[in-house]
Amino acid sequence: MKVAKTIKEVRSHVKAARSKGEKIGLVPTMGALHIGHTSLIERAVNDCDYVVVSIFVNPTQFDPNEDFEKYPRPIEADLKICEEHSVDLVFNPLPKEMYPAENFTWVNVEKLTEPLCGQFRPGHFRGVTTVCAKLFNIILPDVAYFGQKDAQQAIVIKRMVADLNMPLKIVVCPTVRETNGLAVSSRNQYLSQRQRKDATLIYKALQKCEALIKDGITDTTKIIGEMRRVLQQEPSIEIEYISIVNAESLRDLEQPKGRVLAAIAAKIGSTRLIDNILIDTCEK
Amino acid sequence: MKVAKTIKEVRSHVKAARSKGEKIGLVPTMGALHIGHTSLIERAVNDCDYVVVSIFVNPTQFDPNEDFEKYPRPIEADLKICEEHSVDLVFNPLPKEMYPAENFTWVNVEKLTEPLCGQFRPGHFRGVTTVCAKLFNIILPDVAYFGQKDAQQAIVIKRMVADLNMPLKIVVCPTVRETNGLAVSSRNQYLSQRQRKDATLIYKALQKCEALIKDGITDTTKIIGEMRRVLQQEPSIEIEYISIVNAESLRDLEQPKGRVLAAIAAKIGSTRLIDNILIDTCEK
Repeated sequence: MKVAKTIKEVRSHVKAARSKGEKIGLVPTMGALHIGHTSLIERAVNDCDYVVVSIFVNPTQFDPNEDFEKYPRPIEADLKICEEHSVDLVFNPLPKEMYPAENFTWVNVEKLTEPLCGQFRPGHFRGVTTVCAKLFNIILPDVAYFGQKDAQQAIVIKRMVADLNMPLKIVVCPTVRETNGLAVSSRNQYLSQRQRKDATLIYKALQKCEALIKDGITDTTKIIGEMRRVLQQEPSIEIEYISIVNAESLRDLEQPKGRVLAAIAAKIGSTRLIDNILIDTCEK
Repeated sequence: MKVAKTIKEVRSHVKAARSKGEKIGLVPTMGALHIGHTSLIERAVNDCDYVVVSIFVNPTQFDPNEDFEKYPRPIEADLKICEEHSVDLVFNPLPKEMYPAENFTWVNVEKLTEPLCGQFRPGHFRGVTTVCAKLFNIILPDVAYFGQKDAQQAIVIKRMVADLNMPLKIVVCPTVRETNGLAVSSRNQYLSQRQRKDATLIYKALQKCEALIKDGITDTTKIIGEMRRVLQQEPSIEIEYISIVNAESLRDLEQPKGRVLAAIAAKIGSTRLIDNILIDTCEK
């Protein structure tokens, strides 16, 4: 496994692979790799001939009051995980390598970045799309892999790729959960034992949503009320949003219809967690 | 020479050339080709193995009150010019091919798009950078060629390419002028015989600027005053801006220093014309 710190090195390694006709897969990460990430890596290794994992805690997607400094960076453990999963190349640049000068150029996806997390993390998606555009331009992968856990991110990236004719395919892989249902996240390590237990209510609320829809409840206000009740069992949970939206447009739904995304963001202590499920309703 | 209307066709032709190891050059145009464009094509043919000319009047860079509908589209003449200049491939898509759905994704270069034309054409540069990002992603050229006549556009595109790590080189070619000094432009054909003559004052004002700087005049307010006087010889000329700026940052200069860009935008009748010159001063 190669580890590259510079754009020049990465390009040279990938170029050599491409010249052999190899299919290039990219798994963009911020490190602190867990089984959610390794599920993406496994899929990439399965689909592609040459797999690149980028590990870069991207400053431009954090708000000044967010956890950029505190975000975990266990690089040695991450490299070990990549090695064990047959990754060909890890790209682990310094911020200076990715942003050598003040960044003037932003890729912005309108509309899809406004609801859900967009309301609570201004500038976040602009940072994500911009750094992904940079990574795609540096690595020129044939396929890039993202997790369904960050549902809005995946939809935004797909739209960016389509609108800008970027020459790659986006694959979205299922959310990986602990046995108690908690969606795996690098931020889970901020949680105490007690908070981890409380956090399982997030997935329980999503399951409640699915059950109600399957039971034929067609009033989303009522469903959201029921989901809120599940979360409110633990007063330590501070709800940011509970949304039931069209899974493509991310527009609020008055009634569940077609492919539905149910999504929650909540804070437990100072840790912000998100989770979601996709529900295919019979209504078209 | 091949002519492609679809992205799929273009990609297939360019892929074949690339697989032979050919160096790909792109000259992005809005058609209505003139000797300014052919100077870019000649440079591209000289530098590259495979030259693509895109001909696309991009709706997203025109304001609703601008000349999008009226903009000349002499496609038969354009194709003949390309053929005569040994172009390998012309990409001439319909708007629907480039924008099949409502465009949500924009590439925006901040700061550099604010002064000069940015003040008078809101959204213009966002349209230019977005369509260029799309063309670069479709064609994946090794080099793309732009004219110095659109000085701010060239600077903005260069910054976009650097900030987003786009894998190509931008070459900026000198402004081509008629013998009377008028910068060649597709919009010159909107001008009457009389207006064409009046328009030559724009370059005369720029030459005045250069002469004053070479004479050691260090007060840009005074120089701009002199340039204004040149233009005001013809009351039909409506000045939009006269600017003396740093040629990289595009920031206003109190005194000419380093590499200076002197730029003018003016309307003659309803036709908006721009021109500029670069002046290397001795002051560093």
